[in-house]
Amino acid sequence: MHIHGGDIYTYQGMLDFSANINPLGIPASVVQAAARGAEQAASYPDTQCRDLRQALAVQESIGLAQPVQPEEIICGNGAADLIFALTLAQKPRQALLLAPGFHEYEQALRAIGCHIQYHYLTAQNGFQLDVQRLTAEITPETELLFLCNPNNPTGLAISRQELLPLLKRCQQCQTLLVLDECFNEFLDDPAAYTLKPLLATNPNLFILKAFTKLYAMPGLRLGYGLCANSALLNRLAEVSQPWRVSTPAQLAGLAALQEQAYVQQAQELIRHERQFLQQQLSALGMQVYNSMANYIFFQTPADWPATFNLAAACRERQILIRDCSNYVGLTPGFYRIAVRTRPENEQLLQAMRQIVLTQEQQGDKCNE
Amino acid sequence: MHIHGGDIYTYQGMLDFSANINPLGIPASVVQAAARGAEQAASYPDTQCRDLRQALAVQESIGLAQPVQPEEIICGNGAADLIFALTLAQKPRQALLLAPGFHEYEQALRAIGCHIQYHYLTAQNGFQLDVQRLTAEITPETELLFLCNPNNPTGLAISRQELLPLLKRCQQCQTLLVLDECFNEFLDDPAAYTLKPLLATNPNLFILKAFTKLYAMPGLRLGYGLCANSALLNRLAEVSQPWRVSTPAQLAGLAALQEQAYVQQAQELIRHERQFLQQQLSALGMQVYNSMANYIFFQTPADWPATFNLAAACRERQILIRDCSNYVGLTPGFYRIAVRTRPENEQLLQAMRQIVLTQEQQGDKCNE
Repeated sequence: MHIHGGDIYTYQGMLDFSANINPLGIPASVVQAAARGAEQAASYPDTQCRDLRQALAVQESIGLAQPVQPEEIICGNGAADLIFALTLAQKPRQALLLAPGFHEYEQALRAIGCHIQYHYLTAQNGFQLDVQRLTAEITPETELLFLCNPNNPTGLAISRQELLPLLKRCQQCQTLLVLDECFNEFLDDPAAYTLKPLLATNPNLFILKAFTKLYAMPGLRLGYGLCANSALLNRLAEVSQPWRVSTPAQLAGLAALQEQAYVQQAQELIRHERQFLQQQLSALGMQVYNSMANYIFFQTPADWPATFNLAAACRERQILIRDCSNYVGLTPGFYRIAVRTRPENEQLLQAMRQIVLTQEQQGDKCNE
Repeated sequence: MHIHGGDIYTYQGMLDFSANINPLGIPASVVQAAARGAEQAASYPDTQCRDLRQALAVQESIGLAQPVQPEEIICGNGAADLIFALTLAQKPRQALLLAPGFHEYEQALRAIGCHIQYHYLTAQNGFQLDVQRLTAEITPETELLFLCNPNNPTGLAISRQELLPLLKRCQQCQTLLVLDECFNEFLDDPAAYTLKPLLATNPNLFILKAFTKLYAMPGLRLGYGLCANSALLNRLAEVSQPWRVSTPAQLAGLAALQEQAYVQQAQELIRHERQFLQQQLSALGMQVYNSMANYIFFQTPADWPATFNLAAACRERQILIRDCSNYVGLTPGFYRIAVRTRPENEQLLQAMRQIVLTQEQQGDKCNE
C-alpha cells in the first residue's frame, strides 16, 4: 500500500502537489551527469563515493568555523536508506518520535522491534514543537530521537538556539539525535536552523540530508549523513551493502553541487509562492499552519462533513495533493501541498475554489 | 575496507578481471534507457516497479509449466539490497552458510546478530558441494540457508535434480532457503540448474537474481527476488524504504530484458573462453577448479612461497584479479578471475606467463 505522496504511477498525468520537490525541476546538468553515469555503469560504483564526499565536505563547510571532513560524510540510496541503516546499526530498544512525522522513522524502528514513544504535536498549539517539553521527555532509556527540522508534514522549524538544551540533554542521556535537515535549505535563513556547527563536539548527533528535494532528483536516490562519530559511521557501513549508491546518483550529486544559482532561484521562488499560497488558502477558509518550508500544511474548514476528502476531489480535477490522515497523530481533514511555480499554484487554487464553492452550495442546501 | 573485486577507483585505468561482469559490456539500449530514466528523475520512482515486474514475470516464465506472477517478484537496489532485507525481515537466530561464499550473506546475518554455522567446502574435494552432507546438517534450528548456485567464488553448480532432497529437508525444517541464482544464466544449461519450477510449491524458497552480472550493469544497481510466499514478500516491503529502486535502474532493466541476442552471444563467448582460460591456466601450473560460470577459481602452485601475492603482481602489470584469501574457509594462494574477451584474456595470460617465469627463475636461484 502506497502511503506517500508522489504516486504519479497510479495517478498518471496529474499535476503533482503531493511530493515536496524543488518546483524548478531537475537541472539539465544533473540529468546529463546521471546519463554519463549510465555510460560508466558496466563497472561497480565507487563504494566509498570518494569524489562526491570530497565535494560535499567543501559544500557543507561553507560558513562553518570547523570544516566538515569527507570522513564525516556517509552517502546512501536516498536519505531513507540511511534511516533504515541507522536503526539497524544502533538497534535502540526505545526511541522517541514526533507525531505527526515522516513515516519511515517509525517503519525503520519497527523493523528492528524498537519500542516507540510518541511526542504529539497538537492542532491547539498550531503543531508548534515545545522544545522544553520534548527535552523533559528524554531519559537515559531514550536511545534514539528522530527530529525533522523543519518538520514534515507541518513545515515548522526550530532554531539552533532553541535546540541547544535538547542537544545537551541528548548528550547527557547518550541519546542518538538523528536530526533530519532534508528541508533546511528551503527555510528563509537555513544557517540559523542547522545544527551542523555542533557536529564536531557532539558524537551523538547525526544530521540527515538529501539531494532529493533540493535538486528535484528523487528518481535518482541520493541522500547523505553528517556525523563526527567514526564508530557509528563504521557500524553503518557494517550493516549495509557496499554498493548502495549508484554511479548515476554519484555523478548527479557532483553536478548538483555546482548548481548554486539554481538553488538561490528556488529559494526566492519558494519564499514568494509560499506566502502567496498561504494567503490564498486562508482566503478559501482553510486553517493554514505557518509552514516555513517548501510545502504547506492545512486543514479543511471544521464545518465540512468528516467524510469529505479534499485529495479525492482534487484528483477528480487531475491534481494530486497529500492526504495526511494516515500520519500518526492526525485525523481526516489534514492535507499537505508542495509550493510550486505561480502558474501551477494558480491551477491548484482554481481547482480548490471550485471545490470550496461546491461544498458551500451543498452546505447551503443542508441548511435550507 | 574494500574486500571485493571491481575496485577500479583505487586502481584506476586497470584491466578488471576481479569483477564477474558480462564481458560484452553494458548494452547501448540499456545505457539509453537509464539516461531516459535520468530525464524522469524529478519524480519519485515507481515504488512498486510495476512495468519492470510485469516484464520480469514474462521473462522468468519462459519454459515453466506454471508462470511466475508479477506479485511473486520483488525488486531491489541490487541483489545485495535484498540479502540485507531478507535477514532483517526474517531475523533468523541461526543460519547456515557455505564457506567459501559471497561475503554479504555473512555481513547481513551479523547485522541482525544471527549465529552463523559454516559448511566448509574443501580443496581436497575440489570445493565440490556434497549435497547429502549439507542436507544432513539442516535441522529445525536452521532458520535460514543461503546457497549460491553456481557458487561464488568457486563457480561450481548443483543441478536441480541433486538439490531436490535439500529443498525437501528445508521444507520439513521450515528453513528459508535463499537460493542465489545470480550467475545461473552463465551456465551451459541454465534450465537444468534453476529451482524456479519449484517456487509455487515451496513457500520457503526465495530465489535471488540480478541484472548486474548478466547485463553488465553493476553501476545501476538492480536485482530481484522470486518467491511465492506473499507473507514473506510483505515482510520484506515492511523492513525497507519504498523507493529502493531508482528510475534509471527500472528503465534499464526493462530495456535489458529485450537484449536476447546479446545474452546468447555472451553465453557462447563465456563457454568458449572459460575452457580456453582454464586450459591455459592449467598449462601455467595453476590448480584450476572446474568452474561452470563466467569466472574461474584457481590456486597458485603449491611450491610458490606463501608470501607471494599473485594479485599484487598482476596489479604491477595493470591488471586486477580477485585475491580470495579473505574468504572464510580460504587461505592465501586462491584467486578468481572473470572470463573476458579473447584479447583481454590473452593480455591476462601474457602477464601471468611473465609472473610464472619470474617465479620459476627465483625458485631455481633458491635451489642453486
